[in-house]
Amino acid sequence: MEPRTSLRFFFLFLAIAFLFLFTWTHLPSTPPPDVTALLDCATNSPSPWCIRLQSNKPLRVSDTPNHPLDPLTVKEINTVRSILSSHALFNSAKSYAFHSIVLEEPDKQQVLRWTKGDPLLPRLASIVARVDGHSYLLTVNLETTQVTVHDTVPLAGYPTMTVEDMTSSIWAPLSNAQFNRTITDRGVDLADLACLPISLGWFGKKEESRRLIKVQCYSMKDTANFYMRPIEGLTVILDMDTKEVVEISDHGRNIPIPKADNTDYRYSAQQLRQQQLNLVNPISIEQPKGPSFVVEDEHMVKWANWEFHLKADPRAGVIISQARVRDSDTGEMRNVMYKGFTSELFVPYMDPTDAWYFKTYMDAGEYGFGLQAMPLDPLNDCPRNAYYMDGVFPAADGKPYVRSNMICVYESYSGDIGWRHSESPITGMEIREVRPKVTLVVRMAASVANYDYIVDWEFQTDGLIRVKVGLSGILMVKGSEYDHMRQVPKHENLYGTLLSENVIGVIHDHYVTFYLDMDIDGSDNSFVKVDIKKQETSPGESPRRSYLKAVRNVAKTEKDARIQLKLYDPSEFHVVNPAKKTRVGNPVGYKVVPAATAASLLDHDDPPQKRGAFTNNQIWVTPYNQSEQWAGGLFVYQSQGDDTLAVWSERDRPIENKDIVVWYTLGFHHIPCQEDFPIMPTVSSSFDLKPVNFFESNPILRVPPNLEKDLPVCKAAVSA
Amino acid sequence: MEPRTSLRFFFLFLAIAFLFLFTWTHLPSTPPPDVTALLDCATNSPSPWCIRLQSNKPLRVSDTPNHPLDPLTVKEINTVRSILSSHALFNSAKSYAFHSIVLEEPDKQQVLRWTKGDPLLPRLASIVARVDGHSYLLTVNLETTQVTVHDTVPLAGYPTMTVEDMTSSIWAPLSNAQFNRTITDRGVDLADLACLPISLGWFGKKEESRRLIKVQCYSMKDTANFYMRPIEGLTVILDMDTKEVVEISDHGRNIPIPKADNTDYRYSAQQLRQQQLNLVNPISIEQPKGPSFVVEDEHMVKWANWEFHLKADPRAGVIISQARVRDSDTGEMRNVMYKGFTSELFVPYMDPTDAWYFKTYMDAGEYGFGLQAMPLDPLNDCPRNAYYMDGVFPAADGKPYVRSNMICVYESYSGDIGWRHSESPITGMEIREVRPKVTLVVRMAASVANYDYIVDWEFQTDGLIRVKVGLSGILMVKGSEYDHMRQVPKHENLYGTLLSENVIGVIHDHYVTFYLDMDIDGSDNSFVKVDIKKQETSPGESPRRSYLKAVRNVAKTEKDARIQLKLYDPSEFHVVNPAKKTRVGNPVGYKVVPAATAASLLDHDDPPQKRGAFTNNQIWVTPYNQSEQWAGGLFVYQSQGDDTLAVWSERDRPIENKDIVVWYTLGFHHIPCQEDFPIMPTVSSSFDLKPVNFFESNPILRVPPNLEKDLPVCKAAVSA
Repeated sequence: MEPRTSLRFFFLFLAIAFLFLFTWTHLPSTPPPDVTALLDCATNSPSPWCIRLQSNKPLRVSDTPNHPLDPLTVKEINTVRSILSSHALFNSAKSYAFHSIVLEEPDKQQVLRWTKGDPLLPRLASIVARVDGHSYLLTVNLETTQVTVHDTVPLAGYPTMTVEDMTSSIWAPLSNAQFNRTITDRGVDLADLACLPISLGWFGKKEESRRLIKVQCYSMKDTANFYMRPIEGLTVILDMDTKEVVEISDHGRNIPIPKADNTDYRYSAQQLRQQQLNLVNPISIEQPKGPSFVVEDEHMVKWANWEFHLKADPRAGVIISQARVRDSDTGEMRNVMYKGFTSELFVPYMDPTDAWYFKTYMDAGEYGFGLQAMPLDPLNDCPRNAYYMDGVFPAADGKPYVRSNMICVYESYSGDIGWRHSESPITGMEIREVRPKVTLVVRMAASVANYDYIVDWEFQTDGLIRVKVGLSGILMVKGSEYDHMRQVPKHENLYGTLLSENVIGVIHDHYVTFYLDMDIDGSDNSFVKVDIKKQETSPGESPRRSYLKAVRNVAKTEKDARIQLKLYDPSEFHVVNPAKKTRVGNPVGYKVVPAATAASLLDHDDPPQKRGAFTNNQIWVTPYNQSEQWAGGLFVYQSQGDDTLAVWSERDRPIENKDIVVWYTLGFHHIPCQEDFPIMPTVSSSFDLKPVNFFESNPILRVPPNLEKDLPVCKAAVSA
Repeated sequence: MEPRTSLRFFFLFLAIAFLFLFTWTHLPSTPPPDVTALLDCATNSPSPWCIRLQSNKPLRVSDTPNHPLDPLTVKEINTVRSILSSHALFNSAKSYAFHSIVLEEPDKQQVLRWTKGDPLLPRLASIVARVDGHSYLLTVNLETTQVTVHDTVPLAGYPTMTVEDMTSSIWAPLSNAQFNRTITDRGVDLADLACLPISLGWFGKKEESRRLIKVQCYSMKDTANFYMRPIEGLTVILDMDTKEVVEISDHGRNIPIPKADNTDYRYSAQQLRQQQLNLVNPISIEQPKGPSFVVEDEHMVKWANWEFHLKADPRAGVIISQARVRDSDTGEMRNVMYKGFTSELFVPYMDPTDAWYFKTYMDAGEYGFGLQAMPLDPLNDCPRNAYYMDGVFPAADGKPYVRSNMICVYESYSGDIGWRHSESPITGMEIREVRPKVTLVVRMAASVANYDYIVDWEFQTDGLIRVKVGLSGILMVKGSEYDHMRQVPKHENLYGTLLSENVIGVIHDHYVTFYLDMDIDGSDNSFVKVDIKKQETSPGESPRRSYLKAVRNVAKTEKDARIQLKLYDPSEFHVVNPAKKTRVGNPVGYKVVPAATAASLLDHDDPPQKRGAFTNNQIWVTPYNQSEQWAGGLFVYQSQGDDTLAVWSERDRPIENKDIVVWYTLGFHHIPCQEDFPIMPTVSSSFDLKPVNFFESNPILRVPPNLEKDLPVCKAAVSA
């Protein structure tokens, strides 16, 4: 074994040497293999997403929580770490890591009763930690310092990876000689290597009782866009706890690594090639009197007739809480939604071969949708008039860091119309009343390795909330021996589209499942399926043979509220407060209004679909249960599907006139096309939460039109 | 009969007296019963939608056509009228009216060959006229003055109503004593009457061989929003040619006329009541260097990488022609769409009772979608940076008038993202590249009596065209004896929602069918249904049991391309040029991408659905045929469904590698809710035409990001 060990050492040395070399270049910076250094901003500045408290940058995050739902502060996270480090479980451990330290939200009814000025409710932290190879769910009471260890024994799966898990995994294969040899044999310098940590799902015994990860690599020679240069067919299975290489699957040596040409998307790369394309003149959203919203106490957003609590979360990304809208008649703030967030994603790729079958990502539970939400780019990710909010997350060692500019809030005006009416030439009345539509957008963008998910919560003054998901970023592509379609044998399935020479964009789906704890004027609500049914007329009843009627069906239990959308069997989906009626007697409510979406067509007993069974329906409704927040389960990594929304819903609990949670899944089928190469123009879809007999009448009837005198006077910038 | 005649005369006198009285008031102006006066702008100014040539207002419309597709000019329409007035058919007629005078577009291949600088192609006019009770389709050659009368004998139905047909119809019932008596018996002053001309569809013999219309009335006492005050159950059937009252159906006298309270939506009415609601500060889209588009020769719009011909049309509203996009690699302008427009609408109401069953509007063919497109309201219908285009239409006497500000064109920036990628904390590379999304919107808004349809053609720099329809305006409501839901017997069907005391919003659908003559890099294209199919793996093939694959099916004939969308049997819908491949061998194409939509569920043999059979599928494809442009047929009024897209498609003609036309229908089910009272917040949906392997790669890769130095410097307006 001696020669192999020394060979391994040689290659490790070689790799480290290359990495040092790289710190001197102006190519995309390669992270050093020292994981601690990576998150230590003192040495790693000016990395904008890595601000430790030691940093001199003024922070927008305070050390005082003001609202029961405010996220843990830097100080509170430090307190938790300090309490736990002296706790028996941790101080006797060989090793431990914090996978999550977040606020354990107080009891919902207590929060609902709380009003500004009341003493803050007891602050608790919910912690997920790995200690000596075991997963723990704990609660720490920040005041009493009491630590409660919860029983999670029945749950398969592992916690969300830490950033340190991911970053350390991608360097671990370099310690393996066989790996390094195949890389160099394929003509790739180890220094050009860029690897990704790929969650491997669960397909049976192989993925059980050991925390594993698959690593696949790319060449980043001559491009920042290494994703377009896959080293195809090479998969390293690692033990994530020990970083031991468990297995190397080495196929596809005959497949060339696609060329770097035309893959770099950075503006600097275009400038070098003098290829800028100036299509449009500068354009900006301007507000001469400033924005119409305020963010009070760091987290309460108040805009127009809305207010809601907004915070960053390492798993969900953005959490909207206690969204309330002002009734234009009574002036009262009325509850609409207690909590809304991205609960889970499911992204199965459609290639059953060795290096691809396991790519069935669940980005929130595996990678942390918030952990991957990078700082937004002012003027481009959000317009000039945006306000930015930071996130505070713990590193694996429990030390807090600040993810700056993680969320933006801005008012949007695209030129759309809120409502209008002109009298037509028929009546001849000279009426033309139009109101512009201005909305408030809350945005984050998560970069889960190659892909970028833009999640918008858009509030409209007419009471509508639009939840929009945009997909951009870079495709996960497959190397191919083909450089032209004419070479492909007739019956060969490429599992995707040939996008460029030797590059296949593999077909995949995206599902984004939202948790929507609707509280329409109170917590006890019912879910009503309003079916739109064809009714035949009786003979002689009417010259019409048919018409449509609305048939209301109140869901009694969970199974009544499992919805698969059908164009030819349509329904509306109302959440109503059965105890509250409008003046003329309609139950007040909101409806979930789907737009373009896609449904998972995978076998229900296919292991990925079992884990992603929360996508079996587009809509589910469950009774409120504080522990049921993550549609794929608490421990999603290598989960077996025993803790999903589909399993909870199977209990078929009563949901009529109860505190209920609606789950909506927004889906996309993605057959890549050449326009997605080397980076994808944003594709988006959305769904709406829309008032339905919630207001007595149009709530924006009385808003004024735009007048020229109120608009700004602008001139070109000095530099223009 | 003597006493009845004098009674009728008395009521007519009474009505006219009231009308004179009304011209002195500041209430919504009531059109005088003199139809000629209505359109005579000399006496009727300052009505902004009625500009005759006599007017002193400078016109934006020129007298010289510049492009083969330019609409007829004022001068050309006058020439047509002059040619026809001396033609035997017209100069020997007792009466005639022009229902349409538009450009007869030259042969498509001739237009495609034409380039700027070439002599203009011969100018022809296509005319639809009614002469002594018969409908004619004629062509006039403006140069040779030759008149061709086409054979339209096989077609049932009548031409689009003239504005004069509509306006004269609503006053005609006042000549009927029985009508006037029932109005006054119901407690409505004749002077408060506002009536609507309602197309009555076709349900059998009753609607044959006579041009009929139904008139229903409202009280406009104390509100501009008379639509909310129906005089329920009263329907007058008129002969539209003679204005004779054929029948009066008089039911529902027990139904009260809903109150005027809270129905007026005008800002002036809110101001009177001191009820303004200022929700947001002023906001504006500003372009310090001005817009990035030009409109050349009045109709050629050139923006960013797009150019297209734009014109107003009395039936379609907006016609986009020869849309071409620049290839960012070659610089070449490439054909995408030869012609796109709103071909027809179908709006069936879902109430089979006497006063409602026939409400199954086909707004383009019956009312003229362009004729009803009123001047847009600057700053509210379109933002400050908009450019406006006028329409030139003929009155019934053939005299041209100008519909000013009928179309707007503006650049939109809502804060959305064109494409983006951040490197995640996993790779640690400091990359954050984001490009804002700026689009060009072409907008019109048609007010077909109560309803307002906003139609947007939105061009994106990534090659996508989004076609969006917004619905706003005022509901068509039904009077009801109920003022609270508790009064409604359990099994009674209201056919809608009780919106306010005694007001029911009747359930209805909207279908908007678009004609899309796609020419992807040339006219000969194929329609490819790319099915997304579940594929089971073979035992042992993969740990996966299933995946999705894309199966391409080229439509051979029309019946292969009749598409009903299914969420669980999904497809992509490509229009490709089979003769042109990308560098790696994919056929170049565009795809039709549906978003939220609705399908008609009515019986196919229900008379309205037979007339609206073009909504039987969401997508159809036909071979190009210059005469097949109107999905409901040329003569839609009282049509019997014998000239619809469904009938044409039944011929099952070959469509592979042919010049093909795609038809897409965007649908909405509308169960009204109280928020729609008294005027509806806009609801919208859209579909996309999206490049799919049309470009070699992302066409906006090389656009620059926004930079602060390019943005404007603004200050509040002086008055602020």
